[in-house]
Amino acid sequence: MIMARDEHSVTPQSQDFSAWYNDVVFRAELVDRGPVRGSMVIRPYGYRIWELLQADLDGRIKATGHQNAYFPLLIPQSYMAREAEHVEGFAPEFFTVTHAGGKELEEPLIVRPTSETIIGEMMAKWISSYRDLPLLLNQWANVLRWELRPRMFLRTSEFLWQEGHTAHATAADAVAETMLALGFYQDVATGIAALATVPGEKTPGERFAGAERTFTIEAMMRDGRALQAGTSHFMGTNFAAAFGITFTGESGTAELCQTTSWGMSTRMIGGLIMTHGDDKGLVLPPDLAPYQAVIVPIGRGEQAQTTLTAASGLAAALQRAGIRTHVDDRPQVSPGFKFNDWEMRGVPIRLELGPRDLAAGTALMSRRLSYPQPDAAKQAIPLDAAPELLTAELAAFQAMLARRAVDFREEHTAVVDTWPEFTVAVAGGWALALHCGEQACEDEIKAETAASPRCIPLDGEPAQGTCIRCVKPSAYGKRLIFARAY
Amino acid sequence: MIMARDEHSVTPQSQDFSAWYNDVVFRAELVDRGPVRGSMVIRPYGYRIWELLQADLDGRIKATGHQNAYFPLLIPQSYMAREAEHVEGFAPEFFTVTHAGGKELEEPLIVRPTSETIIGEMMAKWISSYRDLPLLLNQWANVLRWELRPRMFLRTSEFLWQEGHTAHATAADAVAETMLALGFYQDVATGIAALATVPGEKTPGERFAGAERTFTIEAMMRDGRALQAGTSHFMGTNFAAAFGITFTGESGTAELCQTTSWGMSTRMIGGLIMTHGDDKGLVLPPDLAPYQAVIVPIGRGEQAQTTLTAASGLAAALQRAGIRTHVDDRPQVSPGFKFNDWEMRGVPIRLELGPRDLAAGTALMSRRLSYPQPDAAKQAIPLDAAPELLTAELAAFQAMLARRAVDFREEHTAVVDTWPEFTVAVAGGWALALHCGEQACEDEIKAETAASPRCIPLDGEPAQGTCIRCVKPSAYGKRLIFARAY
Repeated sequence: MIMARDEHSVTPQSQDFSAWYNDVVFRAELVDRGPVRGSMVIRPYGYRIWELLQADLDGRIKATGHQNAYFPLLIPQSYMAREAEHVEGFAPEFFTVTHAGGKELEEPLIVRPTSETIIGEMMAKWISSYRDLPLLLNQWANVLRWELRPRMFLRTSEFLWQEGHTAHATAADAVAETMLALGFYQDVATGIAALATVPGEKTPGERFAGAERTFTIEAMMRDGRALQAGTSHFMGTNFAAAFGITFTGESGTAELCQTTSWGMSTRMIGGLIMTHGDDKGLVLPPDLAPYQAVIVPIGRGEQAQTTLTAASGLAAALQRAGIRTHVDDRPQVSPGFKFNDWEMRGVPIRLELGPRDLAAGTALMSRRLSYPQPDAAKQAIPLDAAPELLTAELAAFQAMLARRAVDFREEHTAVVDTWPEFTVAVAGGWALALHCGEQACEDEIKAETAASPRCIPLDGEPAQGTCIRCVKPSAYGKRLIFARAY
Repeated sequence: MIMARDEHSVTPQSQDFSAWYNDVVFRAELVDRGPVRGSMVIRPYGYRIWELLQADLDGRIKATGHQNAYFPLLIPQSYMAREAEHVEGFAPEFFTVTHAGGKELEEPLIVRPTSETIIGEMMAKWISSYRDLPLLLNQWANVLRWELRPRMFLRTSEFLWQEGHTAHATAADAVAETMLALGFYQDVATGIAALATVPGEKTPGERFAGAERTFTIEAMMRDGRALQAGTSHFMGTNFAAAFGITFTGESGTAELCQTTSWGMSTRMIGGLIMTHGDDKGLVLPPDLAPYQAVIVPIGRGEQAQTTLTAASGLAAALQRAGIRTHVDDRPQVSPGFKFNDWEMRGVPIRLELGPRDLAAGTALMSRRLSYPQPDAAKQAIPLDAAPELLTAELAAFQAMLARRAVDFREEHTAVVDTWPEFTVAVAGGWALALHCGEQACEDEIKAETAASPRCIPLDGEPAQGTCIRCVKPSAYGKRLIFARAY
């Protein structure tokens, strides 16, 4: 019998959040380290989370008239250079192909860190009239950005994402599109991922390289830090000018298009791990859990076969009800090992099925977590009502996690008006504070506290006064969220 | 009003098959050329075909216990070199990253041309006991292979595919897996793609670099050439030995795993274009058609709005019945332009809806193609029965294309026993011939006729005799398919 302690215990969150995170992602078999520094292998248990997230987001993207396409991975270096701010922002992260087919290339190729340039080049070719607008494209792809301090899911040299790219006739249309995409992200984040994200706009210093305006959804992790979980950019005519994306308007004059881009990535998985996890390991929201319920059959000898058969029957009934169910039939490990294993791997509901349960026509149900009241008690549920009961349990679990995330964020967010209050707030959570809007002042705050402005919340109350740091008059007309961030 | 002729006419197949193909892929807006030589942009109309194919194949892969995962794009050069035949086969096609983060890398990285090596490295880490087997993985990914003579979908420097990679305890298990995957491909090809593929084994000279045995499905294009539409490889212990993929058996001894890999790619789209297309352009099998039916509302002035409203209502009814339907409501082009456009773009069923049709409660239906009898007649169908009728029409259209492909292949395949017959057969189709099995002889045949052995058909009748070329005794125990190939 394999001993449970080493394989399933993770460093407690409170002791070392970073070590806890690493323990969870590797021991839960979400990922492994790739052979190249900063690279990540997404293992089946982690990739399934991504597939579930993809399916939901892709549905939203298609339902609003966007079409998927695929653009080349390798981008001529000269394209990257055409938009000055863009290349300045991304050049330090380039992976560069210099050789192909045994020869040195005339022009080096950049492995895409993002696709505005190559898609801009194609848009210029495809758009000629106002009748071609809006052009609403999306791509699911891998992107590469050199990373010195890798962190699984959050910062790796390669990650998976979708990138929406659209072109419009007017700035108003493009801004509306930018907000539509932000809405997808907020709905996905607060819906299936059960995060407590706040949508808002980035300050100029935090904008995407080449954007006029950048919007974000910011989530709070259980160490109080912020995670940017999706961004949407209004480019104005910056890329249209660089790539010649023009259209002939109804009046017959040539005009530059207004473009947008927006992306959500595998980083989101890091966000949900750090939002819901606890000292026992991973906690998965049911909507994104590869297995929503795991059944552990119990019994020795002849009884083992009887309970295993019953477990398979129960799993089939649950699967027919749309519940992703797994039967842990490993003969070589004990029930206790399995309980610890699936607890660490974050499965929302566990069902135990032993000979006595079977005789009573019941199974013992345990929830991975309960909130606000702790409730570790196992509960006997009738087998024939299990599909119905579990459907309700999973919906309740999903809602419970979402509520827990909101409560946590609210408990760890402080409205602050003095510098000492600010430094206390950002040491363990978020500060809502007024700011002068000057970059130098942002930089000073960051140097001193490691906190940066995460966003100007869209639904923030109007507020004015003096800057939390330099006491100049405040900008933006409302408070900003400041936090240390991933 | 835009003139139709130039935009919709394609070079006739019989006149220049290659020019016909290029006309179709670009004018139907399946793809565009990327900025880098040999690169391809997959436009929404082409990408949707891929998504439909992916969904079907992914379902088959998952239903048989395989799990999706994701492995890094960049592979250390030293990994590629560990299996001698593998590196020899792929090195000429490498794209090489030499710089990252502004510095030259200590070891160059290869942009994956296929992932046996990096997945082999991870398998070695994950597998320790016979209980870990079989390990059944699949990845949907982009791969890059330098291409001097690019051809859209068929040979491009980057393409999309799935690559299955599995590890087993015994050779028998691994061979069974190899055949299971080949079965996926044959089912997808003959099912949703309506191709007339022949499953078979490759001769040693045509094997995947590093494989013990390679299986393929070979399709016949309408110029008589063959297209390899999916391959499945039994690796034996070649990669296990190179990467140290071992397991401890039940008896406690360490053994090498037996591995497989198998892939199907966007090349399949080229295969269906060249199997079903005709002089008017693309013909899409309904199961893979982005739009299965297109409705063209007809009428001027006030009537235009009336028929457009009716067309939208009809489209909604068809969509509810699961039919992918598009209403062509472009005001700036004529109905005739639209008819030609959708014909060229291969939509299986067209519906015209004019004021007179509407008054009669009908729509005029045209099929893109009929076989074996030509049938260009439009047919009035009652609007309220349209969902039911079109569901049946689409199924019949799918079956018709599959039958047409089989008939075409059979008409263009000859059983040959003399060299003159052979050269005639491979000039316009396939030859079924006996062969001695020697590489030098294969090479001679290829040099003289451009034909190569495509496969040893799995269901070929036993046959023996003398080689079609050198008159030595035949090998393989059956006839081989020889053809010029893409």
